[in-house]
Amino acid sequence: MPGSVAEQACELLRRLRREQPLVHHITNLVTVNDVAHATRATGALPVMAMAAEEVEEVAAQASCLVLNLGTPGQDRLQAMWAAGRRANERAVPVVVDPVGAGTSGMRREIAERLLRELRVTVVRANPAEMSHLAGRPAQLRGVESVEVAGPPEEAAAAVARTYGVVAAVTGSRDWVTDGVRFVAVDNGHPVLTQVVGTGCMATAVLACFVAVGGDPLVAAAAGLAYFGYAAELAALESRGPGSFRAALLDRLAQVQPEELRAGVRAREVQRGAA
Amino acid sequence: MPGSVAEQACELLRRLRREQPLVHHITNLVTVNDVAHATRATGALPVMAMAAEEVEEVAAQASCLVLNLGTPGQDRLQAMWAAGRRANERAVPVVVDPVGAGTSGMRREIAERLLRELRVTVVRANPAEMSHLAGRPAQLRGVESVEVAGPPEEAAAAVARTYGVVAAVTGSRDWVTDGVRFVAVDNGHPVLTQVVGTGCMATAVLACFVAVGGDPLVAAAAGLAYFGYAAELAALESRGPGSFRAALLDRLAQVQPEELRAGVRAREVQRGAA
Amino acid sequence: MPGSVAEQACELLRRLRREQPLVHHITNLVTVNDVAHATRATGALPVMAMAAEEVEEVAAQASCLVLNLGTPGQDRLQAMWAAGRRANERAVPVVVDPVGAGTSGMRREIAERLLRELRVTVVRANPAEMSHLAGRPAQLRGVESVEVAGPPEEAAAAVARTYGVVAAVTGSRDWVTDGVRFVAVDNGHPVLTQVVGTGCMATAVLACFVAVGGDPLVAAAAGLAYFGYAAELAALESRGPGSFRAALLDRLAQVQPEELRAGVRAREVQRGAA
Repeated sequence: MPGSVAEQACELLRRLRREQPLVHHITNLVTVNDVAHATRATGALPVMAMAAEEVEEVAAQASCLVLNLGTPGQDRLQAMWAAGRRANERAVPVVVDPVGAGTSGMRREIAERLLRELRVTVVRANPAEMSHLAGRPAQLRGVESVEVAGPPEEAAAAVARTYGVVAAVTGSRDWVTDGVRFVAVDNGHPVLTQVVGTGCMATAVLACFVAVGGDPLVAAAAGLAYFGYAAELAALESRGPGSFRAALLDRLAQVQPEELRAGVRAREVQRGAA
Repeated sequence: MPGSVAEQACELLRRLRREQPLVHHITNLVTVNDVAHATRATGALPVMAMAAEEVEEVAAQASCLVLNLGTPGQDRLQAMWAAGRRANERAVPVVVDPVGAGTSGMRREIAERLLRELRVTVVRANPAEMSHLAGRPAQLRGVESVEVAGPPEEAAAAVARTYGVVAAVTGSRDWVTDGVRFVAVDNGHPVLTQVVGTGCMATAVLACFVAVGGDPLVAAAAGLAYFGYAAELAALESRGPGSFRAALLDRLAQVQPEELRAGVRAREVQRGAA
Repeated sequence: MPGSVAEQACELLRRLRREQPLVHHITNLVTVNDVAHATRATGALPVMAMAAEEVEEVAAQASCLVLNLGTPGQDRLQAMWAAGRRANERAVPVVVDPVGAGTSGMRREIAERLLRELRVTVVRANPAEMSHLAGRPAQLRGVESVEVAGPPEEAAAAVARTYGVVAAVTGSRDWVTDGVRFVAVDNGHPVLTQVVGTGCMATAVLACFVAVGGDPLVAAAAGLAYFGYAAELAALESRGPGSFRAALLDRLAQVQPEELRAGVRAREVQRGAA
């Protein structure tokens, strides 16, 4: 990997702020506002079109397409397929967030079918969702990861190899892997696990970094490091989920590339085959 | 009622924080994010699944199901029926918030049909909605209660007796009744009537208390006392609806069981038959 | 125009706070919560009904109907037509926000058809959206205006004359015109262009002013001046999009009529035919 994650995160954020890439989200109805705000605060331009009639046209203009499976519904699923196929034709990277894969049969099947039938660039999930995608035992409670068997980075590596994607699993330590290389990201704060929408926002921010191109493994790790760093700062100045959410958006918008370089705690880790 | 409301609220909050029950909301599209945040801040885990294809599976895992009638639409209504019937089969308590019952014929009919055909545990409404459900004259403006005939606790008692539910009507004084017993809750703050989403959040919080079981009359009263107490604290440190919303989520997350016991202002009130 | 914009804004806000008009929004799923909050903070009562089965009944009760085209979908479009026609029958003013007109063929066509087939009172748009409606070259990126040919007030005047509406185009200077008269509004703050949802909120607030009646040109200008003034105050006390959003709602609720009169920077401008 040429250059440290910190250096590359700095460079990607600089590019992102200059280029203001368009990021198209087809996402759930719970955190759609948070996702749009997080995208805009990071420096990209969000577009949240979700009607089958327009998503192909919109996805073709975007620099990244995000498919988030929270609160699935037939209309949005149809839009996801149409947008995903068009994104594949135009080589627009596709990021998938399999919210609640494992909460219901419907969500697990959708997630697996998207990964099998579309060319997906990055999957971002919590440990239980990633384990479900890897066919390993895991327990979700609603959309929260409560138990997994084995290290989450191994589930991520299995998903990466099975589907030919970069898999990013977030937790007290985030892991990003393509099945061969592993990047560990130690930015973040425990409060993230207690606030609704932070998983979706992490995916959105990661997608902004993927949108400016380069190695998706590095972009995904850089995006998670930036998100985690902003969360660290926000946690210092907030005292609950309400003030944290506001502070997180403020910090995402304030963090500058040079500051990010100093704040990143991420590195490539050598691992034997899982 | 064994023990004061304050003591039982303290005990229920302690249990809630320990057990982190799963609460399934099928809710409106305006305050869905607020509802999820309020549930999480209280200490429960929210899941907001609303597709007919998955709600039965999700409701069956939950410790409480909330059906909120704001912004009704055919897809969500279909999901509400499927989830509600499954919840009844599994003895999962069902809480109904008839948002805008009286604003349109559609909403009043849905609310009445849900109450008639499902076994509902608790209904939480504002005075005009409750009056409409009781077949008494009342005026809503949009979803705001502007005028009712007679004391709201009598409308609540009528609804409780007609449908065999616990009826909770919120206002400057909240009343919770099963048609025989009456609990008056004086926690709360006038600002609650001026901020969008606080009714839906009150229902969500009440449902978290119902989810940990026990007498639903007590659980509903405890939940409203806790919500009102958090609102009192939040009102002190905010200066408008934006800062209040953030402070309310912060305070919901911060209030501890012992503190709640001291803050509850609720008691059972003896009343003659209405 | 009888009296200055400032004096009329003061008087309209006083009326608005007293009458609390009902404003019915059929709007997008990204900022629906922000729109409801902004409406309530301004002093009106929001109702967000979006089901075809109830929107005619709801629109007929309202003092203003807002049709916002963000995240269009067939169900909401059907509801918009039903509500719009009923509003026209009852002489309820209709405000249209053509979010992303130009982002996709679907949105441009819907916007043009609504303007052609309904009697619309006010259109509020950003410069690129307004230019698209005027048939002039313009570039949107997602829903952001990035380039327009010619002064935005000329595009607005063309739209006003073509469709017989008041056209309000927002930017570093806002312009409101009926094609003959032009009001320039200089309230506002650059941060508004960097925060998701502020366009939709501006439309919502404008609609609250239109709801209390009088000359829609004046009401639209007064609403934008009030919104811009609240944004100026909010920008002083916030440091990013998260705290700005909360401060904006707080300030909308706090600004009093007399204070508004002093804060308005708007005036009628004489212009030759465009």
